[in-house]
Amino acid sequence: MRGFFSLKTVDEVRDLQAEHFAALRVGMETVPAAEALGRVLGEEVRTPGPVPHFSRSMVDGYAVRAADTAGASQGLPAYLEIVGTVEMGRPAEFAIEPGQCAVVPTGGMLPVGSDAAAMIEHTELLGETTVELAKAVSPGQGVMTEGEDLPAGALCLSPGLRLRAGDLALLATIGVTEVCVYRRPVVAILSTGDEVVPPGATPGPAEVRDANGVALAAMVTEAGGEPRFCGIVRDVEGSLEQAARAAFEGADALIISGGSSVGERDLAKQVLHNLGEPGVLVHGVSLKPGKPTIIGLAGGKPVFGLPGHPLSAMVSFHCLVRPILRRLGGELELREPSLTARLTRKVPSESGRTELVRVRLIGSSTGPLAEPLFGKSAGLTSLTAAHGFVEVPLGVEGLDADAEVRVILL
Amino acid sequence: MRGFFSLKTVDEVRDLQAEHFAALRVGMETVPAAEALGRVLGEEVRTPGPVPHFSRSMVDGYAVRAADTAGASQGLPAYLEIVGTVEMGRPAEFAIEPGQCAVVPTGGMLPVGSDAAAMIEHTELLGETTVELAKAVSPGQGVMTEGEDLPAGALCLSPGLRLRAGDLALLATIGVTEVCVYRRPVVAILSTGDEVVPPGATPGPAEVRDANGVALAAMVTEAGGEPRFCGIVRDVEGSLEQAARAAFEGADALIISGGSSVGERDLAKQVLHNLGEPGVLVHGVSLKPGKPTIIGLAGGKPVFGLPGHPLSAMVSFHCLVRPILRRLGGELELREPSLTARLTRKVPSESGRTELVRVRLIGSSTGPLAEPLFGKSAGLTSLTAAHGFVEVPLGVEGLDADAEVRVILL
Repeated sequence: MRGFFSLKTVDEVRDLQAEHFAALRVGMETVPAAEALGRVLGEEVRTPGPVPHFSRSMVDGYAVRAADTAGASQGLPAYLEIVGTVEMGRPAEFAIEPGQCAVVPTGGMLPVGSDAAAMIEHTELLGETTVELAKAVSPGQGVMTEGEDLPAGALCLSPGLRLRAGDLALLATIGVTEVCVYRRPVVAILSTGDEVVPPGATPGPAEVRDANGVALAAMVTEAGGEPRFCGIVRDVEGSLEQAARAAFEGADALIISGGSSVGERDLAKQVLHNLGEPGVLVHGVSLKPGKPTIIGLAGGKPVFGLPGHPLSAMVSFHCLVRPILRRLGGELELREPSLTARLTRKVPSESGRTELVRVRLIGSSTGPLAEPLFGKSAGLTSLTAAHGFVEVPLGVEGLDADAEVRVILL
Repeated sequence: MRGFFSLKTVDEVRDLQAEHFAALRVGMETVPAAEALGRVLGEEVRTPGPVPHFSRSMVDGYAVRAADTAGASQGLPAYLEIVGTVEMGRPAEFAIEPGQCAVVPTGGMLPVGSDAAAMIEHTELLGETTVELAKAVSPGQGVMTEGEDLPAGALCLSPGLRLRAGDLALLATIGVTEVCVYRRPVVAILSTGDEVVPPGATPGPAEVRDANGVALAAMVTEAGGEPRFCGIVRDVEGSLEQAARAAFEGADALIISGGSSVGERDLAKQVLHNLGEPGVLVHGVSLKPGKPTIIGLAGGKPVFGLPGHPLSAMVSFHCLVRPILRRLGGELELREPSLTARLTRKVPSESGRTELVRVRLIGSSTGPLAEPLFGKSAGLTSLTAAHGFVEVPLGVEGLDADAEVRVILL
C-alpha cells in the first residue's frame, strides 16, 4: 500500500479555506449602475431621501380623507364633492377639505389634506361634482405614503451583494447611476499533460482533446470571474513553470489542470509551490471524483491544480475552487440553489471519501425524484445529463433508495 | 362597479401563449464553441467517433489481463512479468501476453492484450520485472473502454438546450469548435408615463425616476436576450406610437412599460395593437401584482405592455414575459430552480387573483423556512430582500402558517 498524498477531508479543506482565503478580495472599480447586473457591490448604498419621495395613490379612483368615509356601505354610502383632478407627474394645486375628494390616477400624488384613495370600482359618479362611495377606506389605504418603502438614510443595499435586477431597479429609483463594485477576479487557466491536444486538433491514437480549458473558463465566468485561458503546455525543460509564471502575472488566481500521472502531478505541485509563499497547502482531497486536487496560496493569490480528467476537474472546481473565487470577488452570502428530492435508487459509496453523485431530476406526484447517473465511467455524459449533485458525506456507506436528499442544482 | 379590462387568468394566458407563441423562434448563427456558454443549441450534435476513442487506464498502476489475476488475494497473490511502461499520449509498442503486465499511468492507453488496470496500491514490486498483485481485478475494472461514455454517432446534445460548462467540455472532447445556436432575441424596451424621468435626473415633487428601463433590460439579459433600451417617451401627439415603431424595427420583441393611469394604459394598448396582426391578445391578467399587463403579437413578434410600477412590472415579466422570450430564443426545457419550504406565517390573499408573494428563505433544523415579505406597499424592498416567490393560486384564500410551499428561486 502506497499513498501518493496525505489526503485532507473536504471539511478540513473548508477549514483551511476559511483560515487562509476568506479575507482575500480583489480591488474595486466604478461602473454604470445600468451595467452592474451580476456584479458584487463594494460599498453600502443608503437612500438619499425617503422612498417614495411623495405620497401617491396605488389605485385609479379618488383621493379622500378617510374620516369622511367612515361607515360607508352599499346601504349607507358616503357622498363627496369632487374638487379637482390630479394629473400624473404634477402636484395638485388644491387641497382636500372635509367632505371633498379629487380624481386621482394610479401613481398620482395625493393632494394636501387627503390620506387615502378609494378605488373607482367602489364608487358611482352622481353628476359632475359628486361621487357616491359604497365602501369605507381607512387612513393609508390605497396609497403608498412618503418613505413607506424606505426612510431617508436607510441602508438599502450592503457590500458583498451580487446585484440582481431588483437591486438595479432600486438604485435607479433613488437616482444612483454609478456604483462601486469589486473587479471581476482574473483567473488564468493553463492545461497541461503529454496526452493533451487543442479541441481543434486531431488527437493521436493515445491522445485526448483539451476539454478543461473551455470548461473551466466557463465555470470561472459563472462564478463571476474573468477567465484568461493561457493554452496547453507540455512540460519540456521547465516550460510549465515558465508558462505558469507568465500566466500568473497580472492574474488574481491561477488554475493548472491536467498532469494525470504521478510524475506530472508532482510537477504541477512543485510549479504551483514555487510561485510564492506560503505555497501548496492541500495536495489531495478525499473527494470523489476530484481526489488529486492541489490548493495553494502564492503571495496572497489562490493557486489550484485540478485533475486532468474533465469530470473530476469540474466537480473539484464546483466543490473547492468556486467558493474561493466567489469570496475573492467580494461575494459575502454564497447562496447555492438546491432542492429536496427523493432518490430513485440506492447510491453505493465507498465511504472513505465525500462523493458528489450526479443526478437527474424527474417530476412526480409526490415531489421531485433524483435519479443517480452512474456508470463507473466517470464519463462526461453523467455531467451533461445531470441537473445537480447529491453529496454523500464522508463516512456514510451509501444512501438508500427513497432517501430524502438535498440536490445542489447545477 | 366598472371593469377596466376583461381580466384573463394566468392559466388562460398560458394557454394563449402555448397556442400563439410556443412555435416562434429567432434565427440561428454559428459561434465558437468556447464562447457558447449560456447560448441555446440550434442543431443536434452527434459524436463523430466513440468517446473515449481508446481504452485507457483510470488508475496509476498496471495494465493486466484480468484472467491472470483471478483469485489473487493477500494470502495468495498473483505474480506478473512487467514487459514495459506505457507513456502518456503514446500507444504502447508492445502487447500483453498471458502472465504479463505493463506499468500504466492514469489516462494512459491500454496496451493490446490487456483488459483491466490494477491500482498500484494493491501491488508490490519484486525486483525489476516482477510485480506481486494482492487483489483480483475483473475485466474492464480500472479502465474506461473505447466508446464506454458514448458510441460513435450517438446523439449527445439536442437542439433547444441552453449550454452549460459540462456541455462545452463534451463539445471540446469530440472536437466540435463551432456550434450553431439561436441568436439572442433582441428585445426593445420603452418606458413611458408623464411622471417618469431618467435615473440620472432629479424628479419633480410628483415625478419618479425610471426604474423599469434598467430592471427590464437586466431581466431580458437573464432570460438570454439582448436588451435594447430605447428611452423614455412621454406621449405628445403620437410620439409614443412613433417611438414604438422605431424601437420595434429590427427587434424580435417589444416591451413598453408604464402608462399607469387608465388613459395611458389604453394608449399603450392601442399603440401595441397598431404594430401588426393579430395585435393585442391579452389586456389585464388576474395576477397580483401585475394586473395591467398587455400581451400581443405583431407580425410574428411578441409585444408586451407592462405596469409602470417597478415591482408589478418585474413580477409580470417573471411570470408572463420570460417564458415567451426563452422559447423565442430556442430554449425547450424551461427549468426553474425551486425548493420546498414551510411558511413562517399565514399569507392572506384575496383569492380573486393569482398572487406572487415575495419570500425570504431562512435555514432551520427542520429544513428551509419561507418568510413572506409583505408591506401593502408593493415596495421594491420586498423584491430586493426576496430569495424567491411563492404562488398563491387563483381561488385559494391564502396559505396557512407552516404550510409547505414551493419557492421559485429568483
